[in-house]
Amino acid sequence: MARHLYSCPLRWSDMDAYGHVNNAVFLRYLEEARIDFINGLAPQAEAEGSFAGGSVVARHEIDYLRPLIHRPEPVTIEMWVAKIGAASMTVHYEVKDEEHVYVRAATVVVPFDLAAGHPRRVSREERTILERYREEAVAA
Amino acid sequence: MARHLYSCPLRWSDMDAYGHVNNAVFLRYLEEARIDFINGLAPQAEAEGSFAGGSVVARHEIDYLRPLIHRPEPVTIEMWVAKIGAASMTVHYEVKDEEHVYVRAATVVVPFDLAAGHPRRVSREERTILERYREEAVAA
Amino acid sequence: MARHLYSCPLRWSDMDAYGHVNNAVFLRYLEEARIDFINGLAPQAEAEGSFAGGSVVARHEIDYLRPLIHRPEPVTIEMWVAKIGAASMTVHYEVKDEEHVYVRAATVVVPFDLAAGHPRRVSREERTILERYREEAVAA
Amino acid sequence: MARHLYSCPLRWSDMDAYGHVNNAVFLRYLEEARIDFINGLAPQAEAEGSFAGGSVVARHEIDYLRPLIHRPEPVTIEMWVAKIGAASMTVHYEVKDEEHVYVRAATVVVPFDLAAGHPRRVSREERTILERYREEAVAA
Repeated sequence: MARHLYSCPLRWSDMDAYGHVNNAVFLRYLEEARIDFINGLAPQAEAEGSFAGGSVVARHEIDYLRPLIHRPEPVTIEMWVAKIGAASMTVHYEVKDEEHVYVRAATVVVPFDLAAGHPRRVSREERTILERYREEAVAA
Repeated sequence: MARHLYSCPLRWSDMDAYGHVNNAVFLRYLEEARIDFINGLAPQAEAEGSFAGGSVVARHEIDYLRPLIHRPEPVTIEMWVAKIGAASMTVHYEVKDEEHVYVRAATVVVPFDLAAGHPRRVSREERTILERYREEAVAA
Repeated sequence: MARHLYSCPLRWSDMDAYGHVNNAVFLRYLEEARIDFINGLAPQAEAEGSFAGGSVVARHEIDYLRPLIHRPEPVTIEMWVAKIGAASMTVHYEVKDEEHVYVRAATVVVPFDLAAGHPRRVSREERTILERYREEAVAA
Repeated sequence: MARHLYSCPLRWSDMDAYGHVNNAVFLRYLEEARIDFINGLAPQAEAEGSFAGGSVVARHEIDYLRPLIHRPEPVTIEMWVAKIGAASMTVHYEVKDEEHVYVRAATVVVPFDLAAGHPRRVSREERTILERYREEAVAA
């Protein structure tokens, strides 16, 4: 029942001509959080049969709650596992700081066997680890 | 009952280290298609009370059906209006070429009064124009 | 004594919070022009011993003459070869439209043997082709 | 005779299809270092007549010494002032870690009066502060 926390630095150029972080850039933030999460699952990162060995994004849902303006302080991305399927997992996130939630999102991630070139099933070991981060799904 | 077609050029740098267009970059493609669509709605682009006068993204849903690799030919983005709300519209898209659909997506766009700094309702004129691009919603 | 012309589409998100195309984005434009140029040199693009088989950037010099604001019309990138070395070529560019020059730049490109993992010399065939695009160097 | 040090986090998506940080992305890194440097010059960041009040890039020179691959550890950007002109300053940088220098670069920055919409001269106060970071120029 743990949440993964990722401290995500912004870049000035993440802002668009409206002067706030562009909607597409938040997918980069989520990507960084996901890589950090997945690498943490398998400290032996190259381990065969781990998410760290390769995965692809099948779907995103993302809600923009309030604009985010560049500042030196990072934002926090809270992340947990909402669903573990036979051949996918669904992660949920909140991009926030102490005062506000800026974005809520959900991503369906498919483990991918890079060597073989096709998706693969979630292994029993992965399932055990992911269960620690599992929470009741909240509509993203 | 028309669909808006946008011819979207790729850039080599849209690809990530996996050698295909990164998932976040597709939101840039959708943004380009949306701007082209919205500008076309109001040839008098600065007209007060038009989407072209300002709008923000409230939500995306995006499904990645197959990887896209950089090539000189653009992809086509087909776009239509799935829903017209009191203070938002939902557009659907397909990113495709003659052979494949790469991405299906939906975006909730909120018209925004930039001068006043807050969202505003969809005007009657906008509604009339948007109806021409309206189709039964397909699950994105 | 020919110049290569590349018609370079802009994206709205190329602009930063100052409301003009960000200085880093121009390197993306130059990259697109260079890829287009190099692919055109070797219609048989995978041909061994051609720049199209792989190359890396060793150096850029870039002068920003006036700000560029997003518009639907592409900019033109004029490109020519300023120098052909033993193991590099230097290309010069102007990013412009009919009214203005926005950027002048120069790039040193090193042909790279991707299979072997190291730079290589410019071949005699490449030199012959590149000579057609050669001009007296103008200070970039 | 001090150098400004900036710890620059990488993003996975900074890599291109060659699997190393794309040459254009280094200009983003330099931008982050520059903003950090300039903000540090004027703790009262909005102060009229400070670089923090606005500046534009007039020129970059950048040499790519070795490829950089994404890793969780940031790179260090060392930065100093090579020249202080009447209406510009030239900063030099090295992008490095404990083992290697990846990039050497130089940027000409022009202080810009955003309200008035034109470049302005370097003030006496700025000159005094910048002198602390001044070093004999090294060819970039």
